[in-house]
Amino acid sequence: MSRPLSIAVAGLGTVGAGVLRLLSENAEIVAARAGRPVVVKAVSARDRLRDRGVPVSTLRWYDDPVALAADPATDVVVELIGGSEGPARALVEAALAAGKPVVTANKALLAVHGAAIAERAEAQGVPLAFEAAVAGGIPAIKALREGLAANRIRRVAGILNGTCNYILTVMREQKREFGEVLAEAQKLGYAEADPSFDIDGVDAAHKLAILAALAFGRPVDFAAVHVEGIREVSALDIALAEELGYRIKLLGLAARTASGISARVHPCMVPVAAPIARVDGVFNAVVAEGDHVGRVMLEGRGAGAGPTASAVVADLIDLARGRVTPVWGAAPGALASVPSVPMDRHVGAYYLRLMVLDRPGVIADVTGILRDQAISLEAMLQRGRAPGEAVPVVLTTHDCEEAQMRRALARIAALDAVLEKPALIRIEPL
Amino acid sequence: MSRPLSIAVAGLGTVGAGVLRLLSENAEIVAARAGRPVVVKAVSARDRLRDRGVPVSTLRWYDDPVALAADPATDVVVELIGGSEGPARALVEAALAAGKPVVTANKALLAVHGAAIAERAEAQGVPLAFEAAVAGGIPAIKALREGLAANRIRRVAGILNGTCNYILTVMREQKREFGEVLAEAQKLGYAEADPSFDIDGVDAAHKLAILAALAFGRPVDFAAVHVEGIREVSALDIALAEELGYRIKLLGLAARTASGISARVHPCMVPVAAPIARVDGVFNAVVAEGDHVGRVMLEGRGAGAGPTASAVVADLIDLARGRVTPVWGAAPGALASVPSVPMDRHVGAYYLRLMVLDRPGVIADVTGILRDQAISLEAMLQRGRAPGEAVPVVLTTHDCEEAQMRRALARIAALDAVLEKPALIRIEPL
Repeated sequence: MSRPLSIAVAGLGTVGAGVLRLLSENAEIVAARAGRPVVVKAVSARDRLRDRGVPVSTLRWYDDPVALAADPATDVVVELIGGSEGPARALVEAALAAGKPVVTANKALLAVHGAAIAERAEAQGVPLAFEAAVAGGIPAIKALREGLAANRIRRVAGILNGTCNYILTVMREQKREFGEVLAEAQKLGYAEADPSFDIDGVDAAHKLAILAALAFGRPVDFAAVHVEGIREVSALDIALAEELGYRIKLLGLAARTASGISARVHPCMVPVAAPIARVDGVFNAVVAEGDHVGRVMLEGRGAGAGPTASAVVADLIDLARGRVTPVWGAAPGALASVPSVPMDRHVGAYYLRLMVLDRPGVIADVTGILRDQAISLEAMLQRGRAPGEAVPVVLTTHDCEEAQMRRALARIAALDAVLEKPALIRIEPL
Repeated sequence: MSRPLSIAVAGLGTVGAGVLRLLSENAEIVAARAGRPVVVKAVSARDRLRDRGVPVSTLRWYDDPVALAADPATDVVVELIGGSEGPARALVEAALAAGKPVVTANKALLAVHGAAIAERAEAQGVPLAFEAAVAGGIPAIKALREGLAANRIRRVAGILNGTCNYILTVMREQKREFGEVLAEAQKLGYAEADPSFDIDGVDAAHKLAILAALAFGRPVDFAAVHVEGIREVSALDIALAEELGYRIKLLGLAARTASGISARVHPCMVPVAAPIARVDGVFNAVVAEGDHVGRVMLEGRGAGAGPTASAVVADLIDLARGRVTPVWGAAPGALASVPSVPMDRHVGAYYLRLMVLDRPGVIADVTGILRDQAISLEAMLQRGRAPGEAVPVVLTTHDCEEAQMRRALARIAALDAVLEKPALIRIEPL
């Protein structure tokens, strides 16, 4: 057996400790599959004395993570600090500059600075691996970049944030409102104290930007992703969706269209019969559609110490074996420069739920506005009757352009009889 | 860009023609992802003049597939002839002997002779790739052998035969009997004229044997797989399963138990809520359970020209990039020698459906036999009453050993009041 692969790990939070634990528990299996032992030699974290459930006293310790890049006796740097700026970014840049392969779980860094970082890695001829950055333990990057590499990918979509999927699942199962379920998820540790990164869709958008780059073979473009979170999803809309045969999921969706690549993260209504509709709780899923393979779906745990460590160590095994792939699946010169399509140009069906005064003429006003924007209705339903009071009215449309719908929505919201901000959820056939 | 990867393709049936078509349609994408063009230079098939929808006249033609191995100007041999013996086996052996990497979709060959073939490939240091051999377009081999490589796999299971899954799905949806649905599937081209390979579970067992070798890091052992097909599944049992909250699926299941590796293919009752229960029609699915990653499921098309070609070309891209993995995931010396557990030692819950004469004492006789074998009942239900006539009686058990159940079953079948061969289906929690 060849000489061990020596690694340096920066960041010993849940995931970092999980990687150390996995490498120790499964040392024999990892060595067999890697063709040589994979051994942690150096670490960096903020607090040297904290008990992490794994011994670190025999490892070389660095207070400054960036100094890890210069550790003389390690072959690979594993970055598990997180965040698109600060020490994580500085470490990755220093490691690549030093010619050291990098394994990272950092989706924010890759989404925001991935184009430049990948360029640097490829210019230096240094591998940069990031299986753990998307969908945790699901080997989604490998599947998309290698397993489905023969295909022209038409679309990639996914449930990419376990916190949101958990909250939406509990809201549906227990018929409760968002704020209450979020507070409970925070108590249970399924949501952060500051949850905005998850529930406003930013985390899912980071991951989608990475998936889109891989699927369509072009450098990552986070700025082009349209992002909406789940704060405005109500128990009422979840119940009405159910009645219409849909589930509400926060999806990331990227597609190749005639005018370029569209990429968006927002709550969607998906048919109950679609496989992704049944992916509940903290599970993640990634669906890819290729021209020869058809639809492939992968499902599993998207976060947590074990699943994330599984992905990080898979990357280390690839490096130990010398299995290397260009960052976005093709050499920089072979990447496509496909334009991004703005959200205004999105074409799809919509669910619209209004709270209106139950009085004659309101529906005529609303449908008149839709007609003026050339939006055609698929169905309309009014729940309950309460003359002179507020009742929900649901409209679903045939395909129309987002810009049309936005114009119609502004006019509908301005009607006297429309009492609240209308709820708009896009319907995705999937 | 480096020099092209030149390939020789043996077998130009549906899959072979699909590979040629994919390589021609997606030449640019494949070249970008492979780092160089992947070009077919030589082919072999039975009939040179048959129209396959793809041009072959400019390619070097070999009537004898084995001669392909000696083609001087090709780097890789793609074997798409099929069958565990004959020309397919001879070609693969010749190619490896000549030091040429082999890509094959041949599950029968790998299941039956895979241990010896892998040994030869590794002794020669020649890559042997077979993503297309299991679950068609789903990158199951790559996911298991590379993506989940950091894990000790506890269990791998799957819907591995699209023909069986299609037949069982139609039987359930249309409440029809096996024979009728099979005949229709043959007319539609979903089942072969001689369907036994599929419906008797042999094809699924080939694939399971390969998955088990990868999951547990030991040479393939087809002889140790217990195999039952779906011929005896009745519409009545499918309906009764539904009533009990189960779906009937033909699954391949391999697990690491305290006494060794168990591997079996047979109809199973799986809870309706299990993700695999919803994988219907010709779709395949593979579920793997790892100690760190938890449960991961992959779903997609398990057969057909496009999906299979997608997998074959993914292997070619790996070879073009120099990404190589030992056949069973670890070097021969690092493979485990874990014993196989015979089916008699299987422990699980059972569904038993009897057609009995509706007269006093029958249930007491049956339950007495089960008690004598120390099998404990979970539930019993009798459908309809017809004194003096045949009625179905269903029993479900708690976990017991297969040998116990077999003994009980022989005695139950011998009872006068039991009018037909009892139906036995294993219940899998999944």
